[in-house]
Amino acid sequence: MRRVFIYDTTLRDGSQGAGISFAIEDKIKIAKALDSFGVSYVEGGWPGSNPKDDLFFEQMKKVELKNARLAAFGSTRRKDANVKEDEVLKAILKSDVKTACIFGKSWDLHVKQALKTTNEENLKMIYESVYFLKSKKLEVIFDAEHYFDGYKSNKKYSFEVVSAAVSAGADLICLCETNGGMIPSDIEAIVKETVAEFPNAKFGIHAHNDSDCAVANSIVAVENGCLLVQGTINGIGERCGNANLCSIIPALKIKKGYECVASKNLKKLSELSRYVNEILNLMPNDSEPYVGKNAFAHKAGVHVSAIKITPETYEHVDPSLVGNGRRILVSDLAGKSNIASKAVEMDLGIENAPEKVKKVIEIVKAKENEGFQYENADASFFLVTKKTLESFKPFFVLKGYRVAVEKRPTGEIISEAAVKLDIKGKEEHAVAEGDGPVNALDRCLRKALIKYYPEIEDVVLTDFKVRVVNGNANTAAKVRVLIESSDSSKSWGTVGVNENIIDASWQALSDSVEYKLLKKSKK
Amino acid sequence: MRRVFIYDTTLRDGSQGAGISFAIEDKIKIAKALDSFGVSYVEGGWPGSNPKDDLFFEQMKKVELKNARLAAFGSTRRKDANVKEDEVLKAILKSDVKTACIFGKSWDLHVKQALKTTNEENLKMIYESVYFLKSKKLEVIFDAEHYFDGYKSNKKYSFEVVSAAVSAGADLICLCETNGGMIPSDIEAIVKETVAEFPNAKFGIHAHNDSDCAVANSIVAVENGCLLVQGTINGIGERCGNANLCSIIPALKIKKGYECVASKNLKKLSELSRYVNEILNLMPNDSEPYVGKNAFAHKAGVHVSAIKITPETYEHVDPSLVGNGRRILVSDLAGKSNIASKAVEMDLGIENAPEKVKKVIEIVKAKENEGFQYENADASFFLVTKKTLESFKPFFVLKGYRVAVEKRPTGEIISEAAVKLDIKGKEEHAVAEGDGPVNALDRCLRKALIKYYPEIEDVVLTDFKVRVVNGNANTAAKVRVLIESSDSSKSWGTVGVNENIIDASWQALSDSVEYKLLKKSKK
Repeated sequence: MRRVFIYDTTLRDGSQGAGISFAIEDKIKIAKALDSFGVSYVEGGWPGSNPKDDLFFEQMKKVELKNARLAAFGSTRRKDANVKEDEVLKAILKSDVKTACIFGKSWDLHVKQALKTTNEENLKMIYESVYFLKSKKLEVIFDAEHYFDGYKSNKKYSFEVVSAAVSAGADLICLCETNGGMIPSDIEAIVKETVAEFPNAKFGIHAHNDSDCAVANSIVAVENGCLLVQGTINGIGERCGNANLCSIIPALKIKKGYECVASKNLKKLSELSRYVNEILNLMPNDSEPYVGKNAFAHKAGVHVSAIKITPETYEHVDPSLVGNGRRILVSDLAGKSNIASKAVEMDLGIENAPEKVKKVIEIVKAKENEGFQYENADASFFLVTKKTLESFKPFFVLKGYRVAVEKRPTGEIISEAAVKLDIKGKEEHAVAEGDGPVNALDRCLRKALIKYYPEIEDVVLTDFKVRVVNGNANTAAKVRVLIESSDSSKSWGTVGVNENIIDASWQALSDSVEYKLLKKSKK
Repeated sequence: MRRVFIYDTTLRDGSQGAGISFAIEDKIKIAKALDSFGVSYVEGGWPGSNPKDDLFFEQMKKVELKNARLAAFGSTRRKDANVKEDEVLKAILKSDVKTACIFGKSWDLHVKQALKTTNEENLKMIYESVYFLKSKKLEVIFDAEHYFDGYKSNKKYSFEVVSAAVSAGADLICLCETNGGMIPSDIEAIVKETVAEFPNAKFGIHAHNDSDCAVANSIVAVENGCLLVQGTINGIGERCGNANLCSIIPALKIKKGYECVASKNLKKLSELSRYVNEILNLMPNDSEPYVGKNAFAHKAGVHVSAIKITPETYEHVDPSLVGNGRRILVSDLAGKSNIASKAVEMDLGIENAPEKVKKVIEIVKAKENEGFQYENADASFFLVTKKTLESFKPFFVLKGYRVAVEKRPTGEIISEAAVKLDIKGKEEHAVAEGDGPVNALDRCLRKALIKYYPEIEDVVLTDFKVRVVNGNANTAAKVRVLIESSDSSKSWGTVGVNENIIDASWQALSDSVEYKLLKKSKK
């Protein structure tokens, strides 16, 4: 079984992505998570380029990594300068890592137009920089920037670049598809020829996703001789992103049988993907292969019927291998079998009652027409079903609420909510302030309920999202509020829809509490 | 130049995606947009499977398409039944299309476990169904479901399936990678062998994205002999989506020189992508290759310096070819050259004033620490820069506001806002009701301003988005509100951040109006 090294650059090239901003503590957390997941290298940043990265490497000196090597990124020395005096190379040494990854130009056009130097000087810059770092006992990876464009423009020169790095002692040459525009047949041909040209060198691949082929290109490069793959978690990175390690690792491991990450760690892939999104506060891509919420979600009735019989029929890999799971979606395309499956999943007890299933389908369709969506709001789906099918005795009835937000001339902002509920035949009227109107509403709802239902004590809201529902809408259009709640043992989603954001929030808040109470009362 | 046919299935297979729901009017709008863009086929739906699709085909009888053929999807006849009595095939005929696309099983495992019939009966189902539709003078595309898994399981049988469809007269056999799990080397080998086995047949490819290779797989299939590509706009579809035509079309046309869509139409690709997202109310994927907002966005200082000299250095294609454009991002990674470029783009007049650029960098960094993000809020960036650099004379000063939302026992909800402003030295106190608190606030802001600044009349809010900013947050955490506004000539984005959603909304609203006034006053 051939070994492939996974080189994560989430913290360096990933940070170039639009909307990505790392605090130093974030970087340290992610470095630790990557290490415990078991990548071979964690590229931490570019020392000397900004104070944040310097501080990161400083703090990492105290952190012990178990599986991964910490790598520092940088460039070859400046043109016409002394390698020993180079600030970038000195900063790499100062970062105290064992692995350096330095990039140099391999496209002649670039050497001329961006560096404004000669092809010979560029070769010297590469040779001397690699040689210098090797002389300091570092492992050196040479990133051949724009290698594939360079090859197409002037193959001879791109080979000279590789040759300079190899003869200076570089441990591995990473062929960088910097512009991201190549398609698999380009990669296959160029990697094959390069590997053949340098039979004693080791090669890696660094791909970008501008032609939507970064994952495919990385896999093709490995099939044709590359031993190392650079990429990022969830494919974050500049423009269209870097090659997504969350897609590459399972393909190499499960489909191609390469040794790269231990099977038991692969099961933590979905968790790692979510963790990085959470730290970066990025909206997860639900359609993300292998690790996305919908990667194994089934909607069409015909699929859902079939999948129960032969799971492999519609699942390219077993979702549990990557720590993900199968989901059955409730939607207006839902046939009976979807609703029935969802009913089993949610313990609704209607799977053998076709009349009830029909009734649920009707109500779900009507709600979806109003703008509700239950795919991320299982708890609201559960409640709407219960209320449709059973003589549901509500835990509380809303009599009215009032929410006020006032910004005073001093700049101080006050948010106050009052709510009137009928609970077990008694009227409760509570008032509370909050950090904002939804928080105030949440607080006074709890205040009114707690003496009747102390079990709501441990429920906390963990996320809150708002979207305008209608296309091309203005603030008067309907808004959909999604709330994520959790207690000590699980989390659940609820949804509210209204023209008024406060009322949509109220619906999602009260569903959240009601769901908790209903679940509790069933135990 | 070889011709490749683009077969769009956004309206059929795309509708299987999570969160996707088409109204009939949506389907008609998209069909027209696809036709005018110039795809060869628009698959409209599956007649007979649901009333919505029947009604769609009924209404499409009145719509004349200029470039595309409308296709109806369906399955082969039921097992052990008479082809002439088959409801699915009858529904296709009733839809009155000229092209039918019917799918049949090509994986023996499936025939046995899902269809529960014999391999022979399945071949008969395919032969008879294709033959029947051909006898009715339809163009028939046969979708060989699970072709690649079928080939790996029992190559002989998968060839028999193709053979049955070909000998019944199918015009084209579309090889379907239904599970989406293949990688390019699988596709290359299997397509190559299949095309060689049936030298007189025509083949197409239908790929799903479960291994993140749908685009690459489609391109590889074309390079190896397929003449038709099935896919969806923005890659919408079940699980991880279908092959994204927005990535495939430019690759085939620009990179490989195939004839598929006219160059003048290709320039409308980004617009088509946005149009479909807008109709479906889908969050656009900003990193989407070719057509995404960030597809040609540059953030890293070193890139931005370089791109001015040699655009092709960091852009794999000219963005204008696909109707997109270059963007310079403002962020805490921004070097001087980013800010300077942005300043030129926004006409700030500071590009030659390094002290001013430095000051702007400082303020942007500080704001980003508070949770602001300017990548989608150019207008707020413009204002914060102006206010930092110039003795900015405000158009109005907020003295205070009060917003109240009340839900009455009748269920009626009232939203009222009052705002007190100092405008040109006069105090204006306005009150307004709205459909929600933000709408009420917007209305009374305008009410207070309009007699002083009638030019705000034509400003409308077109989008409103809210996100919790801190990771793992609750409703008390900071929220970021993004508002998109437009007038008759352009649109602009503004941002507000606060613990209080109302105040964050206020900031974004007042920035929106202030930006309009500032732009107007400069003219």
